[in-house]
Amino acid sequence: MSNSQDHQPGSSVSAKPFQRLLLTGAAGNLGQLLRERLKPWADVVRLSDIGDLGTAAAGEEIVTCDLADKAAVHAMLEGVDAVLHFGGLSLEAPFEQLMHANIQGTYNLYEGVHKRGIRRVVYASSSHAVGYYPTTERIDADSPLRPDGLYGLTKCFGESLSRYYFDRFGVETVCLRIGSCFPEPRNARMLATYLSYEDFVELVRCALFTPRVGHSIVYGVSDNRIDWWDNSKAGHLGFVARDSADPFAEHFPFSGAWPAADDAGNFQGGPFILAGPQYE
Amino acid sequence: MSNSQDHQPGSSVSAKPFQRLLLTGAAGNLGQLLRERLKPWADVVRLSDIGDLGTAAAGEEIVTCDLADKAAVHAMLEGVDAVLHFGGLSLEAPFEQLMHANIQGTYNLYEGVHKRGIRRVVYASSSHAVGYYPTTERIDADSPLRPDGLYGLTKCFGESLSRYYFDRFGVETVCLRIGSCFPEPRNARMLATYLSYEDFVELVRCALFTPRVGHSIVYGVSDNRIDWWDNSKAGHLGFVARDSADPFAEHFPFSGAWPAADDAGNFQGGPFILAGPQYE
Amino acid sequence: MSNSQDHQPGSSVSAKPFQRLLLTGAAGNLGQLLRERLKPWADVVRLSDIGDLGTAAAGEEIVTCDLADKAAVHAMLEGVDAVLHFGGLSLEAPFEQLMHANIQGTYNLYEGVHKRGIRRVVYASSSHAVGYYPTTERIDADSPLRPDGLYGLTKCFGESLSRYYFDRFGVETVCLRIGSCFPEPRNARMLATYLSYEDFVELVRCALFTPRVGHSIVYGVSDNRIDWWDNSKAGHLGFVARDSADPFAEHFPFSGAWPAADDAGNFQGGPFILAGPQYE
Amino acid sequence: MSNSQDHQPGSSVSAKPFQRLLLTGAAGNLGQLLRERLKPWADVVRLSDIGDLGTAAAGEEIVTCDLADKAAVHAMLEGVDAVLHFGGLSLEAPFEQLMHANIQGTYNLYEGVHKRGIRRVVYASSSHAVGYYPTTERIDADSPLRPDGLYGLTKCFGESLSRYYFDRFGVETVCLRIGSCFPEPRNARMLATYLSYEDFVELVRCALFTPRVGHSIVYGVSDNRIDWWDNSKAGHLGFVARDSADPFAEHFPFSGAWPAADDAGNFQGGPFILAGPQYE
Amino acid sequence: MSNSQDHQPGSSVSAKPFQRLLLTGAAGNLGQLLRERLKPWADVVRLSDIGDLGTAAAGEEIVTCDLADKAAVHAMLEGVDAVLHFGGLSLEAPFEQLMHANIQGTYNLYEGVHKRGIRRVVYASSSHAVGYYPTTERIDADSPLRPDGLYGLTKCFGESLSRYYFDRFGVETVCLRIGSCFPEPRNARMLATYLSYEDFVELVRCALFTPRVGHSIVYGVSDNRIDWWDNSKAGHLGFVARDSADPFAEHFPFSGAWPAADDAGNFQGGPFILAGPQYE
Amino acid sequence: MSNSQDHQPGSSVSAKPFQRLLLTGAAGNLGQLLRERLKPWADVVRLSDIGDLGTAAAGEEIVTCDLADKAAVHAMLEGVDAVLHFGGLSLEAPFEQLMHANIQGTYNLYEGVHKRGIRRVVYASSSHAVGYYPTTERIDADSPLRPDGLYGLTKCFGESLSRYYFDRFGVETVCLRIGSCFPEPRNARMLATYLSYEDFVELVRCALFTPRVGHSIVYGVSDNRIDWWDNSKAGHLGFVARDSADPFAEHFPFSGAWPAADDAGNFQGGPFILAGPQYE
Repeated sequence: MSNSQDHQPGSSVSAKPFQRLLLTGAAGNLGQLLRERLKPWADVVRLSDIGDLGTAAAGEEIVTCDLADKAAVHAMLEGVDAVLHFGGLSLEAPFEQLMHANIQGTYNLYEGVHKRGIRRVVYASSSHAVGYYPTTERIDADSPLRPDGLYGLTKCFGESLSRYYFDRFGVETVCLRIGSCFPEPRNARMLATYLSYEDFVELVRCALFTPRVGHSIVYGVSDNRIDWWDNSKAGHLGFVARDSADPFAEHFPFSGAWPAADDAGNFQGGPFILAGPQYE
Repeated sequence: MSNSQDHQPGSSVSAKPFQRLLLTGAAGNLGQLLRERLKPWADVVRLSDIGDLGTAAAGEEIVTCDLADKAAVHAMLEGVDAVLHFGGLSLEAPFEQLMHANIQGTYNLYEGVHKRGIRRVVYASSSHAVGYYPTTERIDADSPLRPDGLYGLTKCFGESLSRYYFDRFGVETVCLRIGSCFPEPRNARMLATYLSYEDFVELVRCALFTPRVGHSIVYGVSDNRIDWWDNSKAGHLGFVARDSADPFAEHFPFSGAWPAADDAGNFQGGPFILAGPQYE
Repeated sequence: MSNSQDHQPGSSVSAKPFQRLLLTGAAGNLGQLLRERLKPWADVVRLSDIGDLGTAAAGEEIVTCDLADKAAVHAMLEGVDAVLHFGGLSLEAPFEQLMHANIQGTYNLYEGVHKRGIRRVVYASSSHAVGYYPTTERIDADSPLRPDGLYGLTKCFGESLSRYYFDRFGVETVCLRIGSCFPEPRNARMLATYLSYEDFVELVRCALFTPRVGHSIVYGVSDNRIDWWDNSKAGHLGFVARDSADPFAEHFPFSGAWPAADDAGNFQGGPFILAGPQYE
Repeated sequence: MSNSQDHQPGSSVSAKPFQRLLLTGAAGNLGQLLRERLKPWADVVRLSDIGDLGTAAAGEEIVTCDLADKAAVHAMLEGVDAVLHFGGLSLEAPFEQLMHANIQGTYNLYEGVHKRGIRRVVYASSSHAVGYYPTTERIDADSPLRPDGLYGLTKCFGESLSRYYFDRFGVETVCLRIGSCFPEPRNARMLATYLSYEDFVELVRCALFTPRVGHSIVYGVSDNRIDWWDNSKAGHLGFVARDSADPFAEHFPFSGAWPAADDAGNFQGGPFILAGPQYE
Repeated sequence: MSNSQDHQPGSSVSAKPFQRLLLTGAAGNLGQLLRERLKPWADVVRLSDIGDLGTAAAGEEIVTCDLADKAAVHAMLEGVDAVLHFGGLSLEAPFEQLMHANIQGTYNLYEGVHKRGIRRVVYASSSHAVGYYPTTERIDADSPLRPDGLYGLTKCFGESLSRYYFDRFGVETVCLRIGSCFPEPRNARMLATYLSYEDFVELVRCALFTPRVGHSIVYGVSDNRIDWWDNSKAGHLGFVARDSADPFAEHFPFSGAWPAADDAGNFQGGPFILAGPQYE
Repeated sequence: MSNSQDHQPGSSVSAKPFQRLLLTGAAGNLGQLLRERLKPWADVVRLSDIGDLGTAAAGEEIVTCDLADKAAVHAMLEGVDAVLHFGGLSLEAPFEQLMHANIQGTYNLYEGVHKRGIRRVVYASSSHAVGYYPTTERIDADSPLRPDGLYGLTKCFGESLSRYYFDRFGVETVCLRIGSCFPEPRNARMLATYLSYEDFVELVRCALFTPRVGHSIVYGVSDNRIDWWDNSKAGHLGFVARDSADPFAEHFPFSGAWPAADDAGNFQGGPFILAGPQYE
């Protein structure tokens, strides 16, 4: 048993903690946000997406990559210290598209991570992996999976996959069950699910910098008083939300009408539960 | 499954969320407090008690009603959007009186609520429904019932009754296990059980306005550092206490003497546990 | 059943809660700290250690005592209202030394406490009684014991011993599982385990003044965002940390290197787990 | 603390364990069954009912008693060692009738038991106290109450009442949550809920003879392979069912049709859940 | 709420419970076994596989179908009362093959089941969905998923998928986490995981005939004294194993050597955990 | 990760599983019993005690050893494959005697086991490590320790010690919380705690032969219908009791008197709880 930290990834003379971080899905909403914020953490930020990423700024590398292309994924992972995996589809879509991007793609990513000896992944899971719990139930990291659609189902897959790569190969992952990450809450449901941009970035930082995470699951949510999600099993991450949806509550005043007993709003996933296999 | 909220109670053009709220027990301590505070929530507040309620102010309706009178209760419920049920006896009393007011009365109320198609009740339960837990034990909404007297026993009855009306007929209830709701703590025990007036009103507001509550149980207690009651299963209500008993702690300094092993103060119900069937 | 508090220890006309408190281990780091802070709580503070305690100030009594000397321990307990037991070895040491001071010594203390009719002990246990939990696991007072060394093992013994003296003889104990109590955190691990001096003194105060504690276990830790230890079962003590390790986090920036899978830092006890039976 | 059993009830020279047992509800189905089987347990079996009990056999005493008549109940309890409380209504009925017999009546009984210094009650509760759990959920003694009708609601009351009399006065009770006690299962639901007569009598014997029961809750059910009820928390009673509904399964073959999603048969209480407040 | 069972699938005059059952994977080992045993349960057994199924016997229909072919799957489901889904790959294989057969295929099946209005699926999941638990840990239906390979990972997917189709569309599924179903145990590990053929068929019968199953997870294992898997949450299925691996224990005597700390045999999945992504 | 069992201890050509087993406490009651029964398991059984062991039979080695003598203990462990640790005091005694034999002695044993590279210990713990639980409570391997006397306290120590040696050094231990192991039950309490000789030997066999045990705790109890102890967390050991106290129940008929509320018999430890520090 070793009593000293080994210095594999960032043992250079660089003042930044990492030499090279890979961000997949860099053209997405959260990817664009992270692109700005990762710079202090790594000498080089490699950005990947299937879509357009513009031109590389100083300290950036840009890779256009379809995650379902195994060889391309393996190539993309060369020289990477850690991966922030935000790639794939992040909305309900026909199953074959979701399978291509989120199932084949995430498998390719983890297989490449393992083969390259990369030790840490921060995985953009989603609260939609458990969106079919009623709003009256409080859940934590060990509550059985209850996806609210096909998209959420692929996030369940990613969580199980990353669990396997940790148990089998020691690849550490923090699964972020992200709620509603926007500049501000857009509807009454988001008074419970809102994750501010600042809190999101802090959560990613904790997921990346915590010395030991094993396979962790954490809800990505700000300090909202409506509180469905219990993060107590992620106390080791040291994530403390600083923002809250509460000041926005007045934008969504109580209408005087409670939802019907079968209303989609009675489930944590909200309208997502109605967006399922609609494309057939 | 419906994706839009229906607009049954308050779908009028009124700017207030509800058209008519019924408050039973309006002449009691908490009833009087609520009488003032409910006005912004409803066009009409119907006030009911067996005792004197004075004259109706603007936006008030006054009904004198013995809750044990079934026909009167049913009449009282006409045109009501939601009920705040604070009626009945709120102190230890001979069993027959408690049965009359709290058992027959609460049954009459729920049967009327169901018959009238009313969908939400905020029920003044009490921490005395679980007052026989020792102070060294922390309990939550699912801890088995342990009443500390006949009064608490009738509150157990009300909780079971409302559970049935939800399971069978879909009537939603929030059971408020109210601690010690006074202007300030009156003794050392209330450093744990104190509920400020402001926090109480906010709790009632959450219980009434939360879109979906099913059958919820929540402890009515301020943010006191002595903390016997775990409200984590009521996170969906969004209740956050703003006040605390802590600033009053200096009024009740430690005496230098711990209680004897069989002291009533070793139970959460405190002296209530000694006030039981004393009238026989 | 008695409804009034009895007034055994401090029922004198003294303005201080206790007449005489005994502090063992008064020459140790935490003992010295407490020596200063106990004065407002008792007319007389009796200080004990095997080492030098200097001269007695006003309101102090000094007793040099080897805890393994049963007669001396019994004598030391005469006239005492309550005991703060911080004596014994507080670091890894050869087993025989630990057994002498922490096992024989603590047994002597409790047997004397019982014989003298003393009703309350505040016991300096340690987080090293459960230090072999991984940092990715959150534990509470009922998590099975997992000592991280011989020192922690003697603390497990003290916790079991005090449980017995409560169950059998009604002697109440609060076991303080103290983390890292220093002026400030000394390394990255202490960002999770840090207990400030002020929070420590407040914890001791709560443990001593709470009317009923039975046999309680509480983690002694400040309000650090890295949070391994769940104190919810000690809510009756009313301990609320006011300080935090968080402002010191910048002293221990992330190095860019995560620990190896078998690194001692992956366990809550940290390097203590390597300090075990090394003296053989 | 006493190390020897005291010999209060049956310390006579009698060869039977008890001098006098009281059986309420002796004219009911289960009452009649017990009437035969209690004889070896007591010199005198006092039988009580509001209905006709025929003539007293040797070793029997017959008392006609309305349980709602407090004075009569107190008189009936004179000289009794223990009570088997099977009195009251055991089917859905108008609330006022249930309140009279099961709420007022059971209160009278416990108050009398306490006043007479009787130490043990075996209480005929019912699985209908928790009949609103779905058949797909397995429950135990601590699962929150979910009555399936007004009758079940009065059994919830009896359980809370007896809990109070134990906590407050030390009266021990075993609450028997009896399933379907008949000569054999009458429908497919009873393949789960069946309690044979022999198993029922053995359960009563265990509830009466176990040295210490505190306040226990146990499901009265035979060893049926369809198993909704977990009796592990009643292991101290030593009840082991010897019979089973399984041999009767062929009487109720699968029809080839599963119930609709809202069928009453999807709840443990089965058709009872539809029999609620129908009398209004 | 309906109090009578509806008679949708098998309401014909047939003496068999079902008109038509579909068995996928009928050419596999368990499929062949079921082919023989299903006849008494349905007028017609439709058999499907991608491999050769020979000629149809009386009461059989044979369909050759690649589960990844959506149109073929939908066609195959016409006129079916219930599905026994044993199709797909049942061993570790390259990911793309597993994804094709077990992910795309199972999605196609459920989407077709839903579209056809079929109400019940018995799904051949596997204990390899949780095979990475150590053998020293006992798990139940709610233990978080820990697949032991890519095959197990696809079973996790199927469990999450079927949960979604129940929550969203009311399609009921029993997930059978089958252990080692062979004529007899083949190695020491199977003393824990063995499921006899007779017990397997009985389990399928329970899964198909139980009136209400919702979304159930049950371990398919005989009554072996080495017991890793807790089926208490599946008590409603009424499955009771009659066989046991125990008589075969003498075939696998203790060797005198315990496995090394990192031996694959220390995990429930045994050598499967080493069979992972080996094909890359 | 190794997929084949290594063959360290018993890899010789011997037909017996082990080459040499050490049994400490071989002169005690259970030691004498085991002495006879161990022979088929090992070529050589080394017997140790502080008392007289008579002459060595074929296949036996006899060592007289005070467990508190570290050097003697280390010598005794040479060439040993596994240890059955039944040595030390097995009854209430003055603390210093218990500390000498059970604390110092067990420490010496484990330190020697570790130094010698021995991998498995079967440790005779006791149900008295948790004897202060009331008889109305059912406990399992993770229930917090509640010793019922000083003897039980030393067993708590042994359990914590062995946990440490597993966590730190990988030494596997099964802690047997032995109930009442006699030819037959001697009093009514033993109807719950009885462990027959045959069941005891089978339990030891399981503890020794199970491939992987980590640090396991198992209650040593026969299949008695009065059931305080939940062994579900020890399912991997495959221990199934074949005997029962039940046929002896008629020897201890119910007396007609329940114990007083403070009777020692209300605790699982029974009269042991009164035998505590009586020697002072």
